[in-house]
Amino acid sequence: SDGDATAQSMPDASPAKWHLAHTTWFFEEFVLVPRLGDGVRFHPHFAFLFNSYYDAVGTRHARPHRGLLTRPSLDEVRTYRAHVDALMAPLLADGDDTVLALLPLGLAHEEQHQELLLTDILHLFSHNALQPAFRPPQPVEIPDRVPGEVRWCGFDGGQMAVGADGGRFAFDCERPRHDVLLQPFQLADRAVTNGEWMAFMDDGGYAEPRLWLSDGFDACRHQGWTAPLYWHRCDDAWWTMTLRGAQPVDPTAPVCHVSFYEADAYARWAGARLPTEAEWETAALGVPTTGNFVSTGRLRPRPQLPAADGGAPIGLFGDVWEWTASPFTAYPGYRPVPGAIGEYNGKFMSGQMVLRGGACTTPDDHVTPSYRNFFHPDKRWQMSGLRLAKDAD
Amino acid sequence: SDGDATAQSMPDASPAKWHLAHTTWFFEEFVLVPRLGDGVRFHPHFAFLFNSYYDAVGTRHARPHRGLLTRPSLDEVRTYRAHVDALMAPLLADGDDTVLALLPLGLAHEEQHQELLLTDILHLFSHNALQPAFRPPQPVEIPDRVPGEVRWCGFDGGQMAVGADGGRFAFDCERPRHDVLLQPFQLADRAVTNGEWMAFMDDGGYAEPRLWLSDGFDACRHQGWTAPLYWHRCDDAWWTMTLRGAQPVDPTAPVCHVSFYEADAYARWAGARLPTEAEWETAALGVPTTGNFVSTGRLRPRPQLPAADGGAPIGLFGDVWEWTASPFTAYPGYRPVPGAIGEYNGKFMSGQMVLRGGACTTPDDHVTPSYRNFFHPDKRWQMSGLRLAKDAD
Amino acid sequence: SDGDATAQSMPDASPAKWHLAHTTWFFEEFVLVPRLGDGVRFHPHFAFLFNSYYDAVGTRHARPHRGLLTRPSLDEVRTYRAHVDALMAPLLADGDDTVLALLPLGLAHEEQHQELLLTDILHLFSHNALQPAFRPPQPVEIPDRVPGEVRWCGFDGGQMAVGADGGRFAFDCERPRHDVLLQPFQLADRAVTNGEWMAFMDDGGYAEPRLWLSDGFDACRHQGWTAPLYWHRCDDAWWTMTLRGAQPVDPTAPVCHVSFYEADAYARWAGARLPTEAEWETAALGVPTTGNFVSTGRLRPRPQLPAADGGAPIGLFGDVWEWTASPFTAYPGYRPVPGAIGEYNGKFMSGQMVLRGGACTTPDDHVTPSYRNFFHPDKRWQMSGLRLAKDAD
Amino acid sequence: SDGDATAQSMPDASPAKWHLAHTTWFFEEFVLVPRLGDGVRFHPHFAFLFNSYYDAVGTRHARPHRGLLTRPSLDEVRTYRAHVDALMAPLLADGDDTVLALLPLGLAHEEQHQELLLTDILHLFSHNALQPAFRPPQPVEIPDRVPGEVRWCGFDGGQMAVGADGGRFAFDCERPRHDVLLQPFQLADRAVTNGEWMAFMDDGGYAEPRLWLSDGFDACRHQGWTAPLYWHRCDDAWWTMTLRGAQPVDPTAPVCHVSFYEADAYARWAGARLPTEAEWETAALGVPTTGNFVSTGRLRPRPQLPAADGGAPIGLFGDVWEWTASPFTAYPGYRPVPGAIGEYNGKFMSGQMVLRGGACTTPDDHVTPSYRNFFHPDKRWQMSGLRLAKDAD
Repeated sequence: SDGDATAQSMPDASPAKWHLAHTTWFFEEFVLVPRLGDGVRFHPHFAFLFNSYYDAVGTRHARPHRGLLTRPSLDEVRTYRAHVDALMAPLLADGDDTVLALLPLGLAHEEQHQELLLTDILHLFSHNALQPAFRPPQPVEIPDRVPGEVRWCGFDGGQMAVGADGGRFAFDCERPRHDVLLQPFQLADRAVTNGEWMAFMDDGGYAEPRLWLSDGFDACRHQGWTAPLYWHRCDDAWWTMTLRGAQPVDPTAPVCHVSFYEADAYARWAGARLPTEAEWETAALGVPTTGNFVSTGRLRPRPQLPAADGGAPIGLFGDVWEWTASPFTAYPGYRPVPGAIGEYNGKFMSGQMVLRGGACTTPDDHVTPSYRNFFHPDKRWQMSGLRLAKDAD
Repeated sequence: SDGDATAQSMPDASPAKWHLAHTTWFFEEFVLVPRLGDGVRFHPHFAFLFNSYYDAVGTRHARPHRGLLTRPSLDEVRTYRAHVDALMAPLLADGDDTVLALLPLGLAHEEQHQELLLTDILHLFSHNALQPAFRPPQPVEIPDRVPGEVRWCGFDGGQMAVGADGGRFAFDCERPRHDVLLQPFQLADRAVTNGEWMAFMDDGGYAEPRLWLSDGFDACRHQGWTAPLYWHRCDDAWWTMTLRGAQPVDPTAPVCHVSFYEADAYARWAGARLPTEAEWETAALGVPTTGNFVSTGRLRPRPQLPAADGGAPIGLFGDVWEWTASPFTAYPGYRPVPGAIGEYNGKFMSGQMVLRGGACTTPDDHVTPSYRNFFHPDKRWQMSGLRLAKDAD
Repeated sequence: SDGDATAQSMPDASPAKWHLAHTTWFFEEFVLVPRLGDGVRFHPHFAFLFNSYYDAVGTRHARPHRGLLTRPSLDEVRTYRAHVDALMAPLLADGDDTVLALLPLGLAHEEQHQELLLTDILHLFSHNALQPAFRPPQPVEIPDRVPGEVRWCGFDGGQMAVGADGGRFAFDCERPRHDVLLQPFQLADRAVTNGEWMAFMDDGGYAEPRLWLSDGFDACRHQGWTAPLYWHRCDDAWWTMTLRGAQPVDPTAPVCHVSFYEADAYARWAGARLPTEAEWETAALGVPTTGNFVSTGRLRPRPQLPAADGGAPIGLFGDVWEWTASPFTAYPGYRPVPGAIGEYNGKFMSGQMVLRGGACTTPDDHVTPSYRNFFHPDKRWQMSGLRLAKDAD
Repeated sequence: SDGDATAQSMPDASPAKWHLAHTTWFFEEFVLVPRLGDGVRFHPHFAFLFNSYYDAVGTRHARPHRGLLTRPSLDEVRTYRAHVDALMAPLLADGDDTVLALLPLGLAHEEQHQELLLTDILHLFSHNALQPAFRPPQPVEIPDRVPGEVRWCGFDGGQMAVGADGGRFAFDCERPRHDVLLQPFQLADRAVTNGEWMAFMDDGGYAEPRLWLSDGFDACRHQGWTAPLYWHRCDDAWWTMTLRGAQPVDPTAPVCHVSFYEADAYARWAGARLPTEAEWETAALGVPTTGNFVSTGRLRPRPQLPAADGGAPIGLFGDVWEWTASPFTAYPGYRPVPGAIGEYNGKFMSGQMVLRGGACTTPDDHVTPSYRNFFHPDKRWQMSGLRLAKDAD
């Protein structure tokens, strides 16, 4: 509804309508206006309303107040979209080089907002006692077997190349491709499950400061964490809010909606650690980028069931974004793209942690082995989980 | 639109949809359920969602998060309203005494929310760079003459009776009627105008701590006040946001959207003071309760033009609520009504200041000479202005 | 020690050293400099450091940072005091009229700070796990009998004169003396005791919103109140921090260190109310202003034991300041003194509640029946208690 | 004075007295009690008061309230120190292996607090309008020449070993020594000067969001940064608060008291970047760890004057800590020491940035090429400056 599309449940989130208008504005601002002039703008105030953070483009509506934009309505934003689509079509048909060069970025940008739209809607609905479902509820799938104990897959380390190799579109922060030195390491064959997380909770994990980073335990106490986001007790069982309404927590599925700080504490409790992003990328080399992405329609993680004989990690792509131990920083030789587009990633290279692999809300084909997602370490509303790592024995 | 009706621009305000649902719930909770039983409820969660502050009735949805209730939609709330209306009709036709006894309170409560709905919508729209108008813009009326200097109307004081006299519905806080002692005093013949307020601003009134109450100047600095709420400079002139969109400030009309703290500082600057509520009520005795209320459709204050020969104050009713010097406290012998209904006013008798007389957004017939409105002294989003008073010479 | 005299435990409190320097500065600024010129100042920065809130006199050191003024040291402040004392002496000997006119205000001001110094030191020491005692601990006095049930003393009401009558020094806010109308009322013969307060606690008083003002219950929840300030459980008993170190709570003594909000909730729980300040003053007329003031050296309230045959309230003066139901506002016809001295009380006439009668930390002879103390309704670090009132039967 | 040693000017800082007591407690807790038993403790509450953050050892006095500990007095703390010293002496004489093993950590810990004591005192004194000097003012040295343009020193990169090599004491976070791959890079021959920083300010550096990390510009705006900490205008010149009182800013000396965010923005403005900690360590290999440390008595940075023919960076050690581009994270294979001592560094490996090289307040011999200091990126009260780096041409 227009109301659903308008509301904003926290400063980190944006209204659905805003996501739609913002991705539309991106094409208007960076493709249409440079080629067709300012006269092509749909509305003189929309650049102010729907610019997210591009300082080079001008001032903008304050992020925490996006939920107050009841006008334009959802219908008007759809008209805006149609307007920009209509102007884009001939430019695309022309095959103009500059336009084609920007297109992959515009599409990847839009895919990012498609995922954020889902996680933001979930956050919004989670505040409503009616527990609305974004998509009709579905029964939880009953797997024919359950995940066993974690098995460890060994990797040799050595001098490895990481980063985008130029074969397809990649964000600037994935470049340049460069060599790193890795020690031998082991990676869990699957992500940590809800059942394992309950064991951590039962063991007092949320109350034991020695398991936590100092800033992490501060966040834990001040925000009152005692379970993953959206979990609540109902009739002596754990339930969780999902895009298909409230559902029982499935102990066999990967845990989701935990912060980096929680993931890090869990790993310490489990006698392991989080992988670095270079380790993760090395493990993912050559693995097909398929999995439980948005097109499966599940909208929630499914149990990861490694083959009985183990060998390789499964579920690296899809299900949940996996927190790594790596702060989001510049690769050696990193240079932002000149101009406003260059504000895309570089200005966020501080205080955030890298996540890898995509989730059940991520558009298919969006993620590659070198893809770097990043959020602040206390954020929980993304589909974020974890996989354990260890040094080689 | 559904979006307009859903958004909440600050914790003090509520979404339009919420106002509609809450006033509906009031009848459901206090009239229907006691007579027809719990089975009559439209939805089991609505009491939780739409209770405002009646602790005796149960827990409730947190006030600052009302804007996150995208469901139920506006249409569903209208259906809720129709449901309750349909059940109310036979009870009213029956002429049941208990029902009839609660009806005036339910209606007066609904009138209060009708006004809040307007002031809350204005606050919401003021955050939108598109400056939407709630009603189509109208040209500002040009009066045939302008207000002259303030003239002072004298009152004798003495032992006066104040409070509701029982002739018609009144809130509990207007009772009991009782005698007070008043010194002789003078009251301005009209409210302070925008033009006079500009003189205060030009004279540095907002920057001179000696004019302000200590808490008031703290609020002024922390909230960055330099003009009434909604005023902004545009092309070297003052404009203000109204329910008819942005309009030029009319120097001849009463100033509006000022806090008690500002009103108090202005009065000190002007060598006067605010009237007490007893003084105001004394001056209003016998004055017809007519004026620029919501039925005029103006939705903004109009210039108050006293007769050339003065004599009596005009504009006491309508245009703007007038801040008084009186904290909102209990009248001698005050007793709250027993039960949940008794939470209506008594629990707010702390830290708020009384306003009198109603405004251009107030339903006609809602206000009487003894009517006590009240808000915290730093609030500005109501249609609040002031009229000066002085001790007798 | 110099350290004790330097620390500031919250923005509301001030360091002991600052109290001493500030009262000294008061004489320098308002007596010495006007008569002897700027050259007489002890140090050019002291006016900046030790001005409290007199905007007319200039800018000043921020109140919350007073604890950072490690220099000047306590010894230097004592030298400053000696300097000012030496200059005051001849002016006093001269009997200059202007000086003599200011002297009572300067002395009353100093007495106020003598009491604040004690309450601020107690607040500071309460944060120290060592629980230091300001004065050596003393055994709690064992009364030969205990206070019985409250008895109610009746008063007739009518037209009563309140306010200072000019016979001795009074602050501007006690003037002008004026008549008020009072309904017949009853006042408890003694203050509420710790034992009675425990009954309120045991009955869930701190958790029942219906007993509280709305702003009061917000304060209660946000500040986590479950008992009076300084109370803590130790070996299954209540202890409280006092100026003589930690001591067991005496159930027979008046309760102390409660906020107005708590006092108001208690009164509602007890089926009574707080008296207005006019009622209190009427009841105190003709009562000797003697009691458990600072000169008794107790530094804590003592049990109030009315005579067996009742009749008149006892303990109105001393022991604990008694919260009233009256906001601190201007008396009819109130005029602040011109000039900086006039900032003394008038600017605080907003959002604060009146207390009456003085406490065991108040200098003897400081308080009269018309004396108005005032604090914000959530403050608890003063020696504040309560006495109940009721309408006449 | 006792007052100076007691006050705490912000939660990040600690009172001088606390530093002394805490380092004393470290030896009592980790050396004396394990060997001599609990009976050896000087006072049963001191572990509570003077534990900093060792969760394994028990609860502790809240950090932001350390300034409220007026007791124990400075003299009592000195007695505590003498008590512990007296007990340590025979253990040291015995040459007990466990004791000797902890000694280097205890001493390095104490050296860290010696530096913090200086930076905390400076922060405290900076809040006092009297601008007290910790040490007597000294005239600023006039160098015989001024630093010229920055010259760039080239380094080859390749596989380099970083981390402590075991030859002397090192903190756990400096281990294990491991290889990294470095691209060829260039490092400035000296630190950025105050004069260069003024050029950044004059060019609007503090107001241009495109120069800043997103979190950095937020910090800049919210904290109102327009110059390094302690700088203030006086008579049209920049002055800065130092441990020798207020002094003119020396344009030839290294800039100090800037945050990571500011350093990063400056580097971007200058067309350069900050070095990684591995680059810095590589450049510092073989450089003598001498420089302007605390023993020179200057207590402020001195101008760095590279030799005319350039070649190698100077001033890497002493003068100012140099911010690097590296988040403080675990080295590959890092393992905290078991037990409470293991809480030393590992729990802070989140959200902080590495600084290298020591400053004019650092004890001589404390810093080595592998030494890792770390603070949050918005902190400014340490002696923190920067040196520029670039990729190889």
